[in-house]
Amino acid sequence: MDPNASGLATRLAEAGQSHLLQFWEELSPQEQGDFAQDLQKMDFQEINGFFRKAMEASGGSKEEKVDARMEPVPREVLGSVTRDRESLKDWEEEGLRCISQSKVAVLLLAGGQGTRLGVSYPKGMYDVGLPSHKTLFQIQAERIVKLQQLAEQKHNIRCSLPWYIMTSGRTMASTKEYFSQHNYFGLKKDNVIFFQQGMLPAVDYEGKLILESKGKLSMAPDGNGGLYRALRNEGIPDDMQRRGIEFVHVYCVDNILVKVADPSFIGFCVRKGADCGAKVVEKTNPTEAVGVVCKVDGRYQVVEYSEITLATAEQRNADGRLTFNSGNVANHFFSFSFLRDIVQKYEPELQHHVAQKKIPYVDSEGRLVKPDKPNGIKMEKFVFDIFQFAKTFVVYEVLREDEFYPLKNADGQDAKDTPTTARHALMSLHRRWLLNAGGHFIDENGRHVPAIPSGGAEDSFTDDGGRNLKDGTDLPIKCEISPLVSYGGEGLEELVKGREFHPTLMIDERGVHELVTNGV
Amino acid sequence: MDPNASGLATRLAEAGQSHLLQFWEELSPQEQGDFAQDLQKMDFQEINGFFRKAMEASGGSKEEKVDARMEPVPREVLGSVTRDRESLKDWEEEGLRCISQSKVAVLLLAGGQGTRLGVSYPKGMYDVGLPSHKTLFQIQAERIVKLQQLAEQKHNIRCSLPWYIMTSGRTMASTKEYFSQHNYFGLKKDNVIFFQQGMLPAVDYEGKLILESKGKLSMAPDGNGGLYRALRNEGIPDDMQRRGIEFVHVYCVDNILVKVADPSFIGFCVRKGADCGAKVVEKTNPTEAVGVVCKVDGRYQVVEYSEITLATAEQRNADGRLTFNSGNVANHFFSFSFLRDIVQKYEPELQHHVAQKKIPYVDSEGRLVKPDKPNGIKMEKFVFDIFQFAKTFVVYEVLREDEFYPLKNADGQDAKDTPTTARHALMSLHRRWLLNAGGHFIDENGRHVPAIPSGGAEDSFTDDGGRNLKDGTDLPIKCEISPLVSYGGEGLEELVKGREFHPTLMIDERGVHELVTNGV
Repeated sequence: MDPNASGLATRLAEAGQSHLLQFWEELSPQEQGDFAQDLQKMDFQEINGFFRKAMEASGGSKEEKVDARMEPVPREVLGSVTRDRESLKDWEEEGLRCISQSKVAVLLLAGGQGTRLGVSYPKGMYDVGLPSHKTLFQIQAERIVKLQQLAEQKHNIRCSLPWYIMTSGRTMASTKEYFSQHNYFGLKKDNVIFFQQGMLPAVDYEGKLILESKGKLSMAPDGNGGLYRALRNEGIPDDMQRRGIEFVHVYCVDNILVKVADPSFIGFCVRKGADCGAKVVEKTNPTEAVGVVCKVDGRYQVVEYSEITLATAEQRNADGRLTFNSGNVANHFFSFSFLRDIVQKYEPELQHHVAQKKIPYVDSEGRLVKPDKPNGIKMEKFVFDIFQFAKTFVVYEVLREDEFYPLKNADGQDAKDTPTTARHALMSLHRRWLLNAGGHFIDENGRHVPAIPSGGAEDSFTDDGGRNLKDGTDLPIKCEISPLVSYGGEGLEELVKGREFHPTLMIDERGVHELVTNGV
Repeated sequence: MDPNASGLATRLAEAGQSHLLQFWEELSPQEQGDFAQDLQKMDFQEINGFFRKAMEASGGSKEEKVDARMEPVPREVLGSVTRDRESLKDWEEEGLRCISQSKVAVLLLAGGQGTRLGVSYPKGMYDVGLPSHKTLFQIQAERIVKLQQLAEQKHNIRCSLPWYIMTSGRTMASTKEYFSQHNYFGLKKDNVIFFQQGMLPAVDYEGKLILESKGKLSMAPDGNGGLYRALRNEGIPDDMQRRGIEFVHVYCVDNILVKVADPSFIGFCVRKGADCGAKVVEKTNPTEAVGVVCKVDGRYQVVEYSEITLATAEQRNADGRLTFNSGNVANHFFSFSFLRDIVQKYEPELQHHVAQKKIPYVDSEGRLVKPDKPNGIKMEKFVFDIFQFAKTFVVYEVLREDEFYPLKNADGQDAKDTPTTARHALMSLHRRWLLNAGGHFIDENGRHVPAIPSGGAEDSFTDDGGRNLKDGTDLPIKCEISPLVSYGGEGLEELVKGREFHPTLMIDERGVHELVTNGV
């Protein structure tokens, strides 16, 4: 394939990207063929346009301006599991009704590889070390199975709760194979739909595409907001329409506590007539690195923590709470018609965000260089970029300890969001379900374990009296309850009320059992 | 010395403690002398009485009863740095006025050794690895120096702010020597007063004193509530009276953020006419292992986290906050007359708490045994046991990130409250002071570092879009401001406003300097 004959060289020249062919003569025929094929698929003018707009948007001292224009989420669009208790039952029933009518779909953002976890396979396939050794994918699949059952039993009707799973080019094959090998964890194969996130080339600060080798572009996924373009490219809205989907729950794979298709959240959004909703957790520490949902110039958006001043982050209401306290956790509700409009009409309006990165590249001598400072950008869209287009936007505040714990990093000193802490967060939740259902844990001496476990070793003798402020979630009281038994803590009383258990306790579809470990 | 002739054997027999002499004949004359001297000083009937009462109080299913009897702190006795902003200035001025009139004393609970930190010397002598390498004692001493200066400057008067330091038998000598070697860190020697906490023998579940060797009792400090007995034994109230002390601030050595003699807290308590006050931080997670200040049967006390049910811990108000959210941080205010009454009248009424421990002992064959289950108890009083005697009790709520971070454990995987995290908590606070005074940090590329630093590596590429909820305090932006320059963030504008700094930044009495590290 000759780049001149095919018109590729001309297209590249017109787009100012001729440098991509600088090593062309050094490539083998096979490499030339592959590279030309990659390049032929690309719309360089479009990419240049993305770059130009993204750089424009990121330029200037945005910082000051956003601060002054921010307004908090007004109470009337906020639903809260702690402040609106009297409505919770009602919202949950509404959500279950929608599910029973097969109007709800789940959309999972699972493009990420477990790079920071130290594994090369999709993050959803990670075994966090629970007694059951279930992976994130299995936990989430079983929650869907159970929720579907709950809806069917309540309304005495058969229903479907389809699960759309966005993978990346790198993770598609292994993800599909994993689900197939495990028979879709009890879901119907037809109700698990995989689709693929797009990629964009990395560019330097002048917008020149970066070569990661002499015949290969440096490519990266286009951010979780690439969702909308991927939905269009893969015809997902048509599939949803065929199935009669009216409401979509979107979430990220890494949250081990995620309430997939949370009926309360869906019911709240439906009752409010919302086209778009965001689940949030309360931000309580001003310097916590989390984006906050708020209004800017009258439109909802997520303002990233890096965009605001400390003064804004520390601003408080008369009740002492942070003014901007709606911490975004990448967990959203969309009406189908809103999602379809986004995909069809609004997606092209979204600008890419600029992420400065250290991007390995080949220099003009053809040598691979690994820079130690950022040398270029990756262009990303964010899933929440579309909030601005909502006509009726709502926010739903939940408890972090019940619903949000992301798995991000490998275990290690001072590391957070690790397999160990994620596992403890889940087992702590299950332990609390058990206690609230009237069960008890007993220790090796037959004594009841206190409801709030001590942070330190039981027998460590602190004579300085400063009681420790620790988070109970890091305590190794081992208790795991299968999602197939309980979706959100329901249905446990008949199994555990008034009973005493030794950890490790496992409750699954085969019953309640204490696991014997190492001779204990 | 013959135990029979001296009457010791009889006293032991009458108290049911004759087993202590079972190895008498095997001891050398020197050992016999030392052991007899230890035993002669002891009032075994009193110890038996402590044991009997402590066991009575700890027996039964206290758990249920306390839950039902608990009431939260009413708003009218609560002062809050976030909810009562309009009063803060006023309280601070009142506190400074009291300090300037030499009416305030500071009382430090520093009996603890750094055992869990992995060192054998007093915890206050621990270097947490700040750029300055100041120890906890030095940081706290310098805060007192600075506060005294602020009060003197404001009121144009000389004043004293005496510091009473409670050590234990084990730490007294090294603590005194450390202060002497460092010239009391700029304090007047006369204003640093050391006194010693008492010890009590450990006993088994039948109340028999435990031998840690054939001629030596197992002894332990009597809890931080041993303060009151120690004050009486060492005549501290008389010393306070001589100095004209009217208000006393009590705190624990391990809190690296402690505002020693916090004028706002003192001023609030004084304005409220309180005889007793507790500083608290808001408990936001139900399973956090912290005692809460509340009312039980109409009297204030701290209910330990191990004493309540999960249902009580999870109880919430209409505003969504935890009902019992006043987290105790061992930081108290006492009027002098209240403290004197406690010491003179009420201390004997306080019962000891029972702490089950693994206590090494010699068995009947004389062999040392290290048990792997709790085999006995240590008896402790707690500093907050006296809240019940207060006539006017108040609670002062502060921000955890500004005022409370205890140093407890050695660095290690999944460890909390470590030298590393404590150091970061302090440097995070100082960084925020600097930003709020109008300074900026710039990175190696000359860009402003965002006010809220990212939790992860700047260049790590997360394509799954779940933004990380991390605590900004674990970030290594190094900035240390000497207490001699600023007690609580004041006085920095003239030094930093509009200026840009590279970390590591150090502001001390010699000026503002950037520390060069390893060729950067």
